[in-house]
Amino acid sequence: MESRLTLVGAGPGNGELITLKGIKALQSADVILYDELANAELLEYAPEHTLKMYVGKKSGDAAFSQDEINGLIVRLARKRGHVVRLKGGDSFVFGRGHEEMEYAREHGITVENIPGVSSCISVPASLDIPVTRRGVSESFWVITATTRSGELSDDIRLAVQSKATVVILMGVNKLKEICDLYKHFGRGYLPMAVIQNGTRPDEKSVIGQVWEMPHLVKENNIGAPAIMILGEVVALNPSYAKEYLRNIYQEQ
Amino acid sequence: MESRLTLVGAGPGNGELITLKGIKALQSADVILYDELANAELLEYAPEHTLKMYVGKKSGDAAFSQDEINGLIVRLARKRGHVVRLKGGDSFVFGRGHEEMEYAREHGITVENIPGVSSCISVPASLDIPVTRRGVSESFWVITATTRSGELSDDIRLAVQSKATVVILMGVNKLKEICDLYKHFGRGYLPMAVIQNGTRPDEKSVIGQVWEMPHLVKENNIGAPAIMILGEVVALNPSYAKEYLRNIYQEQ
Repeated sequence: MESRLTLVGAGPGNGELITLKGIKALQSADVILYDELANAELLEYAPEHTLKMYVGKKSGDAAFSQDEINGLIVRLARKRGHVVRLKGGDSFVFGRGHEEMEYAREHGITVENIPGVSSCISVPASLDIPVTRRGVSESFWVITATTRSGELSDDIRLAVQSKATVVILMGVNKLKEICDLYKHFGRGYLPMAVIQNGTRPDEKSVIGQVWEMPHLVKENNIGAPAIMILGEVVALNPSYAKEYLRNIYQEQ
Repeated sequence: MESRLTLVGAGPGNGELITLKGIKALQSADVILYDELANAELLEYAPEHTLKMYVGKKSGDAAFSQDEINGLIVRLARKRGHVVRLKGGDSFVFGRGHEEMEYAREHGITVENIPGVSSCISVPASLDIPVTRRGVSESFWVITATTRSGELSDDIRLAVQSKATVVILMGVNKLKEICDLYKHFGRGYLPMAVIQNGTRPDEKSVIGQVWEMPHLVKENNIGAPAIMILGEVVALNPSYAKEYLRNIYQEQ
């Protein structure tokens, strides 16, 4: 029996946005360790005998610490064989997937990463918003709002001043701080969208401009997990102009 | 008959890195318009009657102009029904996918985008390099080197001065210019990788530091299509230290 770990990116939430290679890994899994961001329907690809274990975190309250997850991966790979670590989006985008891979490799486990459709691109796309567009945006910058220290990332301060499309993950509880920063740099009228549960049946989103976003997010009851996108590309959403006029009207 | 367009992201090159949803779209296609960056094996998912048409570009020499492709999409959707536009990576990342979608929508065609595994994340991942890593990099910035005007993108000038992991697409012919910019800002020792045909059987790559990269790329005969990644995360590649020592040794 070979002890091995395969990291599988489950995609943004919709159960059909996993890759064929990811499905094959699930079909040969002896153990699946999964998060709440991975669509639970995907567990059905696994054989009868597969141990399926939830190791996610619920709003800051960690069910398992990262050290515990690392330990579990190594123990279960040695005991049962093929461990699949199923994570939302792509495991190498803020997923700590690389830490798990490195830990397993250091413990003599064979490792592989199967990339997934990352939420940072596919969730804006679910509103027909492209992260880049010729003549509008030549780059996009993906940032986590929540850093190790709990402070707002320094990268966001620079990103606000760049021409890049900015995609912010794990930022809903820092929304006001982020919008204030954009306003400080004279960019309060920049188009912005906030999307919760993107690509899932319960997707919810708001589109508008930076200045009105804290209000709109509250009014529409948008919460974590959500993705923010800021930049002129947001105005490419087909209903942007309509939404914007409606909001202006309501303000008056 | 409904006239419709589905954009399908084919993933980075490996034929198993397409999504289940993408496969289903190919299975119901009446027409497939594909690029050279999409793996041609994927055409085998299509039914017998499907018209398969190559509309890619070869190194600057456009087989079809963008206007011609837009026109083809609309004409073929009206005449045959379901057109699938199969593009390498994800259609909304520098893919002009959004332009095609918009044009088709303006002409009354029903449109849908199925996201793909983007090369910007999955190609570095094929060398076990994560675009982000807790404590190392809290963001990544994806930039095209080749802009509409043919000049080096202004965004690259700012990116060089940021702490973000920088991923540059379509940049091999601007390699020296990019490396010079990093050296100008005192970052000639930053770890860097250049990867051609990432995730395919003919993948080729070099890893090193900015200062030596023009030489290494030439020596190893790396050409387009290739992806560059710059940042401390590159040193997480398991053979980085070994490669680096080997190169230093060869220099002496």
